[in-house]
Amino acid sequence: MEKMKSFHVGLAGLVEKNGKFLVLKRSADKDFSPKSWEPVTGRLEKEENPRDGVLREIREETRIKAQVIMPVDTWFFYRGGKEFPMIFIAFWCKHAGGEVKLGWEHSEYKWISLSEAICEPTLEHFHQCFERIKKLKQHLPRDFVS
Amino acid sequence: MEKMKSFHVGLAGLVEKNGKFLVLKRSADKDFSPKSWEPVTGRLEKEENPRDGVLREIREETRIKAQVIMPVDTWFFYRGGKEFPMIFIAFWCKHAGGEVKLGWEHSEYKWISLSEAICEPTLEHFHQCFERIKKLKQHLPRDFVS
Repeated sequence: MEKMKSFHVGLAGLVEKNGKFLVLKRSADKDFSPKSWEPVTGRLEKEENPRDGVLREIREETRIKAQVIMPVDTWFFYRGGKEFPMIFIAFWCKHAGGEVKLGWEHSEYKWISLSEAICEPTLEHFHQCFERIKKLKQHLPRDFVS
Repeated sequence: MEKMKSFHVGLAGLVEKNGKFLVLKRSADKDFSPKSWEPVTGRLEKEENPRDGVLREIREETRIKAQVIMPVDTWFFYRGGKEFPMIFIAFWCKHAGGEVKLGWEHSEYKWISLSEAICEPTLEHFHQCFERIKKLKQHLPRDFVS
């Protein structure tokens, strides 16, 4: 009963730099969804605060330093099968230093505008996050951090 | 290994109505932290989207209808012992209809300002959430929903 109500926690980091957002292309040899674009994503570790977790994933996948602006969305899905229920938490982050250096999981990266992100089909799971950021940016000052 | 990385998910609903926030007093006969003030809180159910879950908890605990404005914070803690790792997700919500009717878990309620919420000692776990809402409200229009 208690076990049924526990979840894995996935994290996404939507990292902004000068008004553009970092997206990574999944390597051709990834089992799941090869060659699609995604923001930084990863899994929360044991005893880890989600804010720290997303910054760790950004560092591990890209070598850049980032700062959390705010969480923008969260949703449930089954990652793989029914035995793997997952809550996803997406954070709007800002670049805080360093150049992108990719590992084996990604083959390319680019910085794209919110409009481009919202139009990119392989980013579909994150379209709503980018839409929410677009709405927030209409009101928040450039240097806002919550 | 996989099990170690799974979490229970707690939800908090910080419900605003005319610039004031709803807080509930825990009943005197609650085991944990009786008579302290808290926002609506609860547990995410199996297969439930956290946005739906927080609205369900608000409805169950207070009978009011609410709408999610946005998630404002998320953090890790152990609820009870080490066997119960939990991720908490707090949502800024707005009242959308109905009058508060409490169940057995709470003995009183009140609508308080952000300044009062930030000063109330028994709301300490939520002070940072209220601080984040205060920062956002300096910029966002009154009717903003992300």
